[in-house]
Amino acid sequence: MSVYTIDVRITPRQGILDPQGKAVANALRSLDFKGVEDVRVGRLVRLRLEAPTPEAASARADAMCRQLLANPVTEDYDIQLLSER
Amino acid sequence: MSVYTIDVRITPRQGILDPQGKAVANALRSLDFKGVEDVRVGRLVRLRLEAPTPEAASARADAMCRQLLANPVTEDYDIQLLSER
Repeated sequence: MSVYTIDVRITPRQGILDPQGKAVANALRSLDFKGVEDVRVGRLVRLRLEAPTPEAASARADAMCRQLLANPVTEDYDIQLLSER
Repeated sequence: MSVYTIDVRITPRQGILDPQGKAVANALRSLDFKGVEDVRVGRLVRLRLEAPTPEAASARADAMCRQLLANPVTEDYDIQLLSER
């Protein structure tokens, strides 16, 4: 068994309003940052999971997203295996 | 000028308490997920920036983190250039 570090990136779906992203975009523009086209704010969940294989760790993270971490109606997620220890 | 998509991943620093992460870890364990060693919850800011070069886009995202997006006392961040359009 190894311990895997996995990043789950959860973002508001395309077409879903993201008021927090809009607020950040406006704040950046008012700080005089140029070229800000769009900002979306999501969540990053960094998991450390003990699992027999990297595939098992990713599959478990996917099940966690479906059951708890992400809202499938309003959010997209993707899973990225970062490292093994 | 191109438009670049950049992900900024903001996580609580090592050693900083992360009650939201602890709550998620406990929720996952109570859903009978095995092998959960640690969970940390951060923010993901997805920027779409118009800039002349990828380097300029990354540098601007870094300045945004320092000035607005991340709290340097309690958070770490990293910047990932995803795509150019």
